[in-house]
Amino acid sequence: MKTPLIDNLQYANFSPRIFQQMREGGVDAVHVTIAYHESFREMVLNLERWNRWFEDHSDLIFKGTTAADVRRAQNEGRTAIFFGFQNPSPIEDDIGLVEICHQLGIRFMQLTYNNQSLLATGCYEDDDTGLTRMGRQVVTEMNRVGMVVDMSHSAERSTLEAIEHSTRPIAITHANPHWWHPALRNKSDTVLKALTGAGGMLGFSVYPHHLAGGTDCTLESFCGMIAEAADRYGARHLGIGTDLCQDQPDSVVEWMRVGRWSKVIDYGEGSVSNAGFPPMPTWFNDNRDFGNIRDGLVATGMSSADVDGIMGGNWLRFYEESFGPA
Amino acid sequence: MKTPLIDNLQYANFSPRIFQQMREGGVDAVHVTIAYHESFREMVLNLERWNRWFEDHSDLIFKGTTAADVRRAQNEGRTAIFFGFQNPSPIEDDIGLVEICHQLGIRFMQLTYNNQSLLATGCYEDDDTGLTRMGRQVVTEMNRVGMVVDMSHSAERSTLEAIEHSTRPIAITHANPHWWHPALRNKSDTVLKALTGAGGMLGFSVYPHHLAGGTDCTLESFCGMIAEAADRYGARHLGIGTDLCQDQPDSVVEWMRVGRWSKVIDYGEGSVSNAGFPPMPTWFNDNRDFGNIRDGLVATGMSSADVDGIMGGNWLRFYEESFGPA
Repeated sequence: MKTPLIDNLQYANFSPRIFQQMREGGVDAVHVTIAYHESFREMVLNLERWNRWFEDHSDLIFKGTTAADVRRAQNEGRTAIFFGFQNPSPIEDDIGLVEICHQLGIRFMQLTYNNQSLLATGCYEDDDTGLTRMGRQVVTEMNRVGMVVDMSHSAERSTLEAIEHSTRPIAITHANPHWWHPALRNKSDTVLKALTGAGGMLGFSVYPHHLAGGTDCTLESFCGMIAEAADRYGARHLGIGTDLCQDQPDSVVEWMRVGRWSKVIDYGEGSVSNAGFPPMPTWFNDNRDFGNIRDGLVATGMSSADVDGIMGGNWLRFYEESFGPA
Repeated sequence: MKTPLIDNLQYANFSPRIFQQMREGGVDAVHVTIAYHESFREMVLNLERWNRWFEDHSDLIFKGTTAADVRRAQNEGRTAIFFGFQNPSPIEDDIGLVEICHQLGIRFMQLTYNNQSLLATGCYEDDDTGLTRMGRQVVTEMNRVGMVVDMSHSAERSTLEAIEHSTRPIAITHANPHWWHPALRNKSDTVLKALTGAGGMLGFSVYPHHLAGGTDCTLESFCGMIAEAADRYGARHLGIGTDLCQDQPDSVVEWMRVGRWSKVIDYGEGSVSNAGFPPMPTWFNDNRDFGNIRDGLVATGMSSADVDGIMGGNWLRFYEESFGPA
């Protein structure tokens, strides 16, 4: 069977138009963000919205919970939607909610979103104290039920401790190497070696603040970076996690950055003069543009097997190993 | 394969001891009550407790969600535990929670528990206004996702309207005929004819307040009533729903009766002088006593096929027809 096309992180302002674009782009599976700062009950409201979309647009999308659903999506010409949290806020202070959320279909959870959480330290804090007491327990529980630890927005020590403490491979679903573009959110060579050395996955982000040159980043530079990462870490540990925030109003990037934790605005990766969502690079605007990335990877001289893996085969293998009980 | 033994309503103070008794009694499936007056979030706490029991006592019990799980229970020598609500309080005022609760494994929901709810009228109200606007919508949604409408604690008109409005057969999981014992909670011949005429199921209760003679009710009287009901309504629409409240402290019957809706005590089916849980009849105390009921049914002269159906086969068929999407 053909290798699937998987984007392992999107937080678009989803709509039938975007679901249609997923089909036009031949995207077989997408991991979408269900929560940033929501409580458990608020997160369930977001799930309810997805249930309505699944009911109303069952010709285009369905809820994915297992790796087999990616194959089903390919067979049926639909897109499987997988759920994840960018913050552990929905499990509140209750470890029992890990299994409840898994039962509701959540397959990825970041231990932090920029700030200190109950579980670990985010990448914007001054001091990184690693996994907390609860953090260690929650990682063990996530390992048990089959929910992937995602450290995309976490600080260095916390990330290394999560890799070490987890008995199953973890993921950085959307970030790039710091050696290519030294953004706070991008990951050190040390982290990426530890991550991939333990069987984990890195998803490359197309969010402009994570790109060398920002919006003006060229496809050649982006794909050259991926080829270099394949040399350093092995192509089989790499995939795509675009962080596509298509059609979102700027109010949403504010929600992502400050939620309810601050009374003053925090510009995160932006600035006073560039407070909203940055414009996307010309070669990636929506789900119809994955062909550009594929072509760019082929142009680097990578093998077609490696390109297929990065475009989805590696995430599929990772789903197979990660979403069931330990 | 042998016909399974199914008890379609228990609200015991569950413990490893009771799970062991289920195995000793050869009980293949039990529908347990997850909520009386809980909000959604509080109900989830109850699910978390069950998840811990499933994790810690997987040799005895597992979570059942489909009819096939009853067969699996028989094959594996374990008991499948199915979930239900005795009140719609966990869906709050949010119809989207019907599907969320179904995804969490809820397979039965009463539209009312004694009082007026957002959906219908309970059997203790003075006036019965039938299904509410939201009630009609929720029944339609329950039909769609595969959650059974249970009218055990509902008033007459509401029950008849639920039978009429539902496009799938409904259940009265735990009650007895009013013509045998005229308790407020027991059901009229009109209701039972409408229920079974539409393919629905009645589960016979062993809760003493529902029994002719109360605690002193004889096995002969109970089984004679079942034989009479089989003549009137057809044996295939009958099953067991003991309402077993084993090991519960009297504080729990108070919670069941008044929750947080009243500042004064309401004795429900009890009285000032008999406020707590009534003593069980000698022939049914716990999950090891289903053989007595079976023997009592055989003694009435019913066919062994009818007895097998009432002891579990009928609920199994109903599960097969009811728990999947419409």
